[in-house]
Amino acid sequence: MAGQEVSIIVDWGTTSLRATLAGKSGDTLDSLETAQGISTLKKGEHEGALMAALAAWFSRYGAVPVAALGMITSRNGWIEVPYVPCPAGPADLATGTVHRTLPNGSDLVFLPGLTDQSGLPFPDVMRGEETQIVGHGLAVDATIIIPGTHSKWANVKANRIDRFQTFVTGEIFALLMNHSFIARGATVPPVDDPEAYRRGLEEAKRSAAMLSVLFSARTGGLAGKLSADQLRSYVHGLAIGQEFRQAREVGWHAEGDQATIVGNDGLNELYVIAAGTFGLEIVMGADDVLTRGALDVLHHALS
Amino acid sequence: MAGQEVSIIVDWGTTSLRATLAGKSGDTLDSLETAQGISTLKKGEHEGALMAALAAWFSRYGAVPVAALGMITSRNGWIEVPYVPCPAGPADLATGTVHRTLPNGSDLVFLPGLTDQSGLPFPDVMRGEETQIVGHGLAVDATIIIPGTHSKWANVKANRIDRFQTFVTGEIFALLMNHSFIARGATVPPVDDPEAYRRGLEEAKRSAAMLSVLFSARTGGLAGKLSADQLRSYVHGLAIGQEFRQAREVGWHAEGDQATIVGNDGLNELYVIAAGTFGLEIVMGADDVLTRGALDVLHHALS
Repeated sequence: MAGQEVSIIVDWGTTSLRATLAGKSGDTLDSLETAQGISTLKKGEHEGALMAALAAWFSRYGAVPVAALGMITSRNGWIEVPYVPCPAGPADLATGTVHRTLPNGSDLVFLPGLTDQSGLPFPDVMRGEETQIVGHGLAVDATIIIPGTHSKWANVKANRIDRFQTFVTGEIFALLMNHSFIARGATVPPVDDPEAYRRGLEEAKRSAAMLSVLFSARTGGLAGKLSADQLRSYVHGLAIGQEFRQAREVGWHAEGDQATIVGNDGLNELYVIAAGTFGLEIVMGADDVLTRGALDVLHHALS
Repeated sequence: MAGQEVSIIVDWGTTSLRATLAGKSGDTLDSLETAQGISTLKKGEHEGALMAALAAWFSRYGAVPVAALGMITSRNGWIEVPYVPCPAGPADLATGTVHRTLPNGSDLVFLPGLTDQSGLPFPDVMRGEETQIVGHGLAVDATIIIPGTHSKWANVKANRIDRFQTFVTGEIFALLMNHSFIARGATVPPVDDPEAYRRGLEEAKRSAAMLSVLFSARTGGLAGKLSADQLRSYVHGLAIGQEFRQAREVGWHAEGDQATIVGNDGLNELYVIAAGTFGLEIVMGADDVLTRGALDVLHHALS
């Protein structure tokens, strides 16, 4: 089998390296994961780590195009790749790729992140989500939500990612659960309580005062209305509900609108419920969007 | 000197016991602090710790009325004292006190906290701040702000604390500075940058999307517009600015209103600047309000 018929996508983050061997049409032929995230590597060790991780595939297929994305392209990674500005599609992203040749002759293509220079007060940034959106497809104008530690709301328009905005919902939720006085006492290991999650969403929807409504996680316990089992889901509802409320305030959606959830960070089901609370109709994107998006940018970069 | 001419106020918190020997008119005659906070004591050890801390004053003055407040009256303290409901003045708070007699014959009076049962979704609570507000005085109707880990906005009306609301600003700020990815990289030890603080306030005022504007602490660094020296003050501006913005949203103030800052948690100067950003005129309360307030409630409780 000739090398050009397969490609490798390397999603290389802080704590892990995940690689996918993809066929021409974007189907996954094989995949692997190692714990050699960028936090475990020093400058100069990246190429060796990559060659070792991909050795079996290289010995089978020879030289293969490799797309690398994730924190590997950040200041703390292998090569810092500048962000490409919005609006951007796969061809625009391809112009921002950085190319190297690996010892076995494989093209190594670092994919850029995306910046929205209209972001206030500073340009907003994403690194990886733009590739997911490309993989989802840009043919239909849409509002895209990518749930995560730093959730992204993005607008697809005229075949490009037109603009986007970050909400740090997942990080605030983690801070509250792991370190706060407000949410102290939640049952460990975590318990999911769908009803408590919905109550959190409703309270977040009711109040413009996030800094105040968060205290209800504490007063609910004091009042005997919120159990240790309910606390985590309630706080999750408050956090995600505030994301939807705030996104609505700044114009991302209105009652009756449609939005598409892309990505799969384990939060999609919760986001669908939240969207329903705000009268937002959700379309679910496919799961394998990162691979398809990376292939799309890679093909533009190598053509 | 007769015992009834002095009183002792014990502000007994999680990590310390602070006691004030007060004259009849509320002037401080002496004060002391020990590290025997309630977290260091087991059930049954509180009386001994208190007698030891106050031994010198007791031996000089004999039996003296003692008012105790703070976390000592919480579920994890010595005696859990139920909250008194709003609206409440010193006489109402006195009806919620719990009385004991110490081994030397001193009256020990635990002061209650305050609850606002109109709070949504659950009754709001304060424990200590109500005593500060009483100490400030209830003669003039006013909006009171008590900056802190859990800031309180309170309304004084017809000689009573009419209602109040908690904002967890200080705790969110601490979580961001101590544990977040968003604010990672701030200079240690902390640097104060008044200009960065004002920029944070302005951004908080501009945006209804707190979960989004917090990300500007990160993007400002990426864009080279926010230095490690500026990060902490900028984030502080975002947090306190959001408190004022959200308090305004839910009706606590409007441009041109007046508010009074009570208490002294080291934040008053920052709150005055924030108030100015929102067109709010500030009157500063006195510093020794806790002692005066505790004496006021104590006198009602023992009369």
